Amino acid sequence: MTLEANTKPAKTAGAFQTLSNLLSEDVAAVEALLESRSASPVSVIPNLSGYIVSAGGKRLRPLITLAVARACGATDMEPVHCLATAVEFIHTATLLHDDVVDESDLRRGKQAAKNIWGNSASILVGDFLFARAFTLMVETGRLPVLDILSNASTVIAEGEVHQLAVQGRLDLPTEDYLSIIEAKTAALFEAAARSGAVCADADDDAIAAFATYGKNLGLAFQLVDDALDYGGTTAVIGKSVGDDFRECKITLPVVIARRRGNAEDKAFWDRALNPDTQKDEDLTHAIHLIRSTGAAEDTFAEARSYIAIAKKAMKALPPSEFIDALADLADFCVERAY
Amino acid sequence: MTLEANTKPAKTAGAFQTLSNLLSEDVAAVEALLESRSASPVSVIPNLSGYIVSAGGKRLRPLITLAVARACGATDMEPVHCLATAVEFIHTATLLHDDVVDESDLRRGKQAAKNIWGNSASILVGDFLFARAFTLMVETGRLPVLDILSNASTVIAEGEVHQLAVQGRLDLPTEDYLSIIEAKTAALFEAAARSGAVCADADDDAIAAFATYGKNLGLAFQLVDDALDYGGTTAVIGKSVGDDFRECKITLPVVIARRRGNAEDKAFWDRALNPDTQKDEDLTHAIHLIRSTGAAEDTFAEARSYIAIAKKAMKALPPSEFIDALADLADFCVERAY
Repeated sequence: MTLEANTKPAKTAGAFQTLSNLLSEDVAAVEALLESRSASPVSVIPNLSGYIVSAGGKRLRPLITLAVARACGATDMEPVHCLATAVEFIHTATLLHDDVVDESDLRRGKQAAKNIWGNSASILVGDFLFARAFTLMVETGRLPVLDILSNASTVIAEGEVHQLAVQGRLDLPTEDYLSIIEAKTAALFEAAARSGAVCADADDDAIAAFATYGKNLGLAFQLVDDALDYGGTTAVIGKSVGDDFRECKITLPVVIARRRGNAEDKAFWDRALNPDTQKDEDLTHAIHLIRSTGAAEDTFAEARSYIAIAKKAMKALPPSEFIDALADLADFCVERAY
Repeated sequence: MTLEANTKPAKTAGAFQTLSNLLSEDVAAVEALLESRSASPVSVIPNLSGYIVSAGGKRLRPLITLAVARACGATDMEPVHCLATAVEFIHTATLLHDDVVDESDLRRGKQAAKNIWGNSASILVGDFLFARAFTLMVETGRLPVLDILSNASTVIAEGEVHQLAVQGRLDLPTEDYLSIIEAKTAALFEAAARSGAVCADADDDAIAAFATYGKNLGLAFQLVDDALDYGGTTAVIGKSVGDDFRECKITLPVVIARRRGNAEDKAFWDRALNPDTQKDEDLTHAIHLIRSTGAAEDTFAEARSYIAIAKKAMKALPPSEFIDALADLADFCVERAY
């Protein structure tokens, strides 16, 4: 499979917009809930959460929940709006905690909240949003929804701790990397899709199909993210390039590039991905190695293999504009790279 | 009301033990759940949570949940065990996050977990335990239980952020202090009691009475804690004295002592409770001022007023050994001071 064969820029560039348009009323309801449910008499809370919630997030996860519920023929969308808002709050809470854990200075191209309000406020407002997410889920009136998202939240935390534990392990097996991203990223995509179907009272087969879609989309999404952090295959160094490198994160592009390198290259990676010995100029060479070894290319190929699974799961379901839009969204998630 | 008039050392010293003995089977079930539900293939998680969960915590909050459920005549205790475990996990998660927020080095007389595993692991394992708490609550099969504890968790985070926001405000009004401790401490005591009654299918009057008990016990508990941090009325400087002072926390004993001080005293408090100007030797003088102004004494008096409300709420309920034990526990919570 070549890059070109799978690229449909005209169609997919609009996939995200198509889905937002199809769901415009639902999206508006969720935006209103995101604002009203982060209200608090303690002003730091709405200020900080408003800053991160409105900081250009794509609302990818709640869009999935909404589209899945619509695809399942949901008629009462009020509980689904609560659920989609809860999913975005959980995502936001993990972002706030990640910024503290990763010591990142930028988030979505803006100063990280912790650099404005401090680490403590970021931790506690994350806790607030996480708790608020569960209150919103109670409003759906469905225990299985709470089961799905509390389990996903457990798995996300496990994935984050696992990632922390392998810091500096440059010979990380690919399987370990995949199990980390399955936990820290794909679990919430899967839960967003699965709970959307449950909230729409879908049958077990449909629930399973949407869960497969969500999980595989999440895996692909994270793989693409990790490749883009090194400029993808184009190596244009923008402001969003090099975050993982500076945080010395072990991601698949690095694992592949190091595995394929000679002794000198291995020594470079071992020095450059150690916070004590990394130099500013190392990023350029890291990007060169990731491109020249085909590591970026192969990370995208891995992502496309998951997208294929996600789209196949959609084919088993009754066709609708929502199913089409979800399939296009899957393409978009890998093709945003080019 | 004098200290002596309200002190029944022989009876109350054993109140905690009496309750533990009455509930010994339930306590054993909760201990087993605390261990089995903090299991994870990511070894840092059981190691860190085992360290803090087994670090001599008194299990006060889950004991309240268990005793309330028994007092309400619960027959199926399995859901109550899940709930009590969830309550302790939420408490543990807040401790882990508090240690990072407060930069405290000691917790329950041992090194804080963050000093062994780092801030990041403490944040993420806190998130894990918090998520696990909600999974346990789903197992109770009762949405109202999830509603109570997700709301309480929101309020706790609000209280913590509020406390953060008033740091350095030495003229904090008493009402603001009380609203902070009502949120950060009393909310979980109240939720522990209320949800125990809900889980036992108690009627609305009983639920309200137990909620009143829990909230007022929590307020008293925090007031006593804050007074003991300055050695109470005895001023024996132990290892648990001075934590709040070193973290420059504004608590009621400080608010009262400063309000009653002359210009020189006020200047002392303003300098000593500023992290940039505090000196090691300031604690001794702070303790002296808190005793000599009657601030410790009056903080205990405030605590006793809440204990009276808590015990009054118990009087409206059908008598039982559990009700008696809960009333004695309330006395114990203030009298542990002497």
